[in-house]
Amino acid sequence: MTEDTTTFSSKGQQATQMTKTGINAVPGFRANGVHCGLKRKRRDMALIVSDRVTSAAAVFTQNAFAAAPVLLSKRRIKAGDVRAIVVNSGNANACTGTRGAKDAEEMTVLAARALGLKPEQVMVASTGIIGRPLDMEKIRTGITECAGGLDTATGDEVAEAITTTDAYTKQAERSVEVEGRTFHVAGIAKGAGMIHPNMATMLGFVVTDAPVAEDHFQALLAETVDETFNMISVDGDESTNDMVAAFANGAEGGALVAPGTPEWHALSDAFRAVCTDLAKMIPTDGEGATHLIEVVVEGAASVADARAAARAVSSSNLVKAAVYGGDPNWGRIVAALGQTEVAIDPASVSITFDGAEGGATVLDKGEPTGALKDAARAFATKEMRIRIDLASGDASATAWGSDLTEAYVRFNSAYST
Amino acid sequence: MTEDTTTFSSKGQQATQMTKTGINAVPGFRANGVHCGLKRKRRDMALIVSDRVTSAAAVFTQNAFAAAPVLLSKRRIKAGDVRAIVVNSGNANACTGTRGAKDAEEMTVLAARALGLKPEQVMVASTGIIGRPLDMEKIRTGITECAGGLDTATGDEVAEAITTTDAYTKQAERSVEVEGRTFHVAGIAKGAGMIHPNMATMLGFVVTDAPVAEDHFQALLAETVDETFNMISVDGDESTNDMVAAFANGAEGGALVAPGTPEWHALSDAFRAVCTDLAKMIPTDGEGATHLIEVVVEGAASVADARAAARAVSSSNLVKAAVYGGDPNWGRIVAALGQTEVAIDPASVSITFDGAEGGATVLDKGEPTGALKDAARAFATKEMRIRIDLASGDASATAWGSDLTEAYVRFNSAYST
Repeated sequence: MTEDTTTFSSKGQQATQMTKTGINAVPGFRANGVHCGLKRKRRDMALIVSDRVTSAAAVFTQNAFAAAPVLLSKRRIKAGDVRAIVVNSGNANACTGTRGAKDAEEMTVLAARALGLKPEQVMVASTGIIGRPLDMEKIRTGITECAGGLDTATGDEVAEAITTTDAYTKQAERSVEVEGRTFHVAGIAKGAGMIHPNMATMLGFVVTDAPVAEDHFQALLAETVDETFNMISVDGDESTNDMVAAFANGAEGGALVAPGTPEWHALSDAFRAVCTDLAKMIPTDGEGATHLIEVVVEGAASVADARAAARAVSSSNLVKAAVYGGDPNWGRIVAALGQTEVAIDPASVSITFDGAEGGATVLDKGEPTGALKDAARAFATKEMRIRIDLASGDASATAWGSDLTEAYVRFNSAYST
Repeated sequence: MTEDTTTFSSKGQQATQMTKTGINAVPGFRANGVHCGLKRKRRDMALIVSDRVTSAAAVFTQNAFAAAPVLLSKRRIKAGDVRAIVVNSGNANACTGTRGAKDAEEMTVLAARALGLKPEQVMVASTGIIGRPLDMEKIRTGITECAGGLDTATGDEVAEAITTTDAYTKQAERSVEVEGRTFHVAGIAKGAGMIHPNMATMLGFVVTDAPVAEDHFQALLAETVDETFNMISVDGDESTNDMVAAFANGAEGGALVAPGTPEWHALSDAFRAVCTDLAKMIPTDGEGATHLIEVVVEGAASVADARAAARAVSSSNLVKAAVYGGDPNWGRIVAALGQTEVAIDPASVSITFDGAEGGATVLDKGEPTGALKDAARAFATKEMRIRIDLASGDASATAWGSDLTEAYVRFNSAYST
């Protein structure tokens, strides 16, 4: 995106107020992040609220040990009147039994009271250590304080409050003009894996002022997550607390944006761009990661095949270690591809490494080209790409992963329960 | 097994010959391993032959890029008259196109000629680097030399010839007496992964002098591989060249051993013990591995569930890094279990760490016990166990893995294509 759109204009807000940033710059939303003591120093309690009725959508972890806040938020989103979310970091409230369920419920009651809403209108998300009860005294103070600062917070303060051991906050935003209307989309995320062990949860929250019917918005989110957050791999583990939630509050003021219209295409492109930015930041930020690996699979027989192939390569330990070592080792890519259920004709497959400083095709329709030296130039920059052409159809997909480094192992073994 | 059975008596052989070891100690089999120059120093060419008609069985990699020797051996075993196998290490003859197919075929022709057999009676296996044509001149010399030394080789020489970067040779054997009969079983294997990248193939060869019908023997092998070689995980990648083959030549001399009889049970126990020994040696030998992790899942609703759960835990990067760090991090185990398709009631699950120096239950029917300090004693010894009770049924399974260490990453990134 261009510089001039990174901070939204404050249209629809008081003209005299300071410039809003991040989620707070999307009309009709307010958010804050404060420190209440669940983490040592960094902010650990966040609130995001729409000041008006909003379409809410969410996708949740499929993990059988889904945490209390996940189970509660699933019920809330189903009931259909959600317009706020309360988030804590530092404690996942997972494997905490009936007490955990009660605590998650109380968090929504407290947030609702502070925001002038009903508990049914509030979702909850938690991330952090597994198996320890929440310190509800800190949570109570935190929610009150957080609600009190909703009008003055920066976007970065909100983004910080959902992180665990992320090296930096993750924010993305787009605004798009179409048919004389302007839609804003902004989101925040926190990283999964390659960070501290029990804190490997991925969270993402995206808001827009576009007016979208709730069922269409849920479909848009599900489809977008499949192409973005579900296509990243850090260490292959899905956490007990993963959640991506989104709100579309219609503060833009126009008619509902319906699928198939130019407005829909523009909005969904912006929405996908925000989710892609956030998703890519996660493996980029992996502790110890030296490369962001983009795996592009083309010529697949189906989108499902393309995704499975891209994910198989981006999540292979051997491929990830080879990238760390700067080695265009296509034998490992072939091995990773070959063990999927994907329809593959070995004699048709081509593999290319590329990066900003160069690259080369190493396997051309099943024949090794020997251009390993040129291919190795792909590793000169942090972002590099592995392109795979299966020559079996027209479908394509992209996956992102981080490389596997000694520092990764150090971080993930040094942590003590 | 007790010491006195580690080297078989030379029953059925010339009384004056020296003591045979390993595969060569099983009556009616001869094997040799020589150096022909595919690897720098270690032996790299092996032959195993039965001197009489034998039941042959094999299981092969499912990888779509299955190498030329795999494809040829599949056809040979189907044709049904196999009694020998020729194996080279140092080059996988994978992704080598029509030339690779021709070379694999020629290896069996050369071996057949040297052994006085028909090419249809010989299987072939290769392991090593992917994408380079075989040096057939070296192969020709190697096969001739190898066939010439079949009567004098030690078991260890054969075992060495199939290794790539394994730190040590892998051999196992059992003899069992039942109903007045004695059966011998011996096998060799080479490691998968955690070794050099393109050489991550797993090979296993097991021979017995028991008389078994070929279809029963194939069923026994398939079932045993599912419980042993298929339950190990080093880095989760299945290679283009994986193969386990077995011969039962009936040199023992008695009637066919039929399923359900006491002889069958004794023989299949010995067969499974040999395969288990060999399978466990593979993660134990992983470059950089400091622990062999045994994951025992009990109380599963089905064997399929038990296996899936055990494999999910033993192959989780986060669990493997925690074991390296000496951390009884049950949160990672729960996360790994929860993302399988296995039927799990989170409130029923128990998790115990144990080892020779102690251990403790850390999760008791869904409740954290807090006994982390005691549990950490499990890591004092190289072999340690994670026991998981799902309390959902009667099925159980065991999986083995190695821990994930900085040295693993070093080895797998330092290799240059």
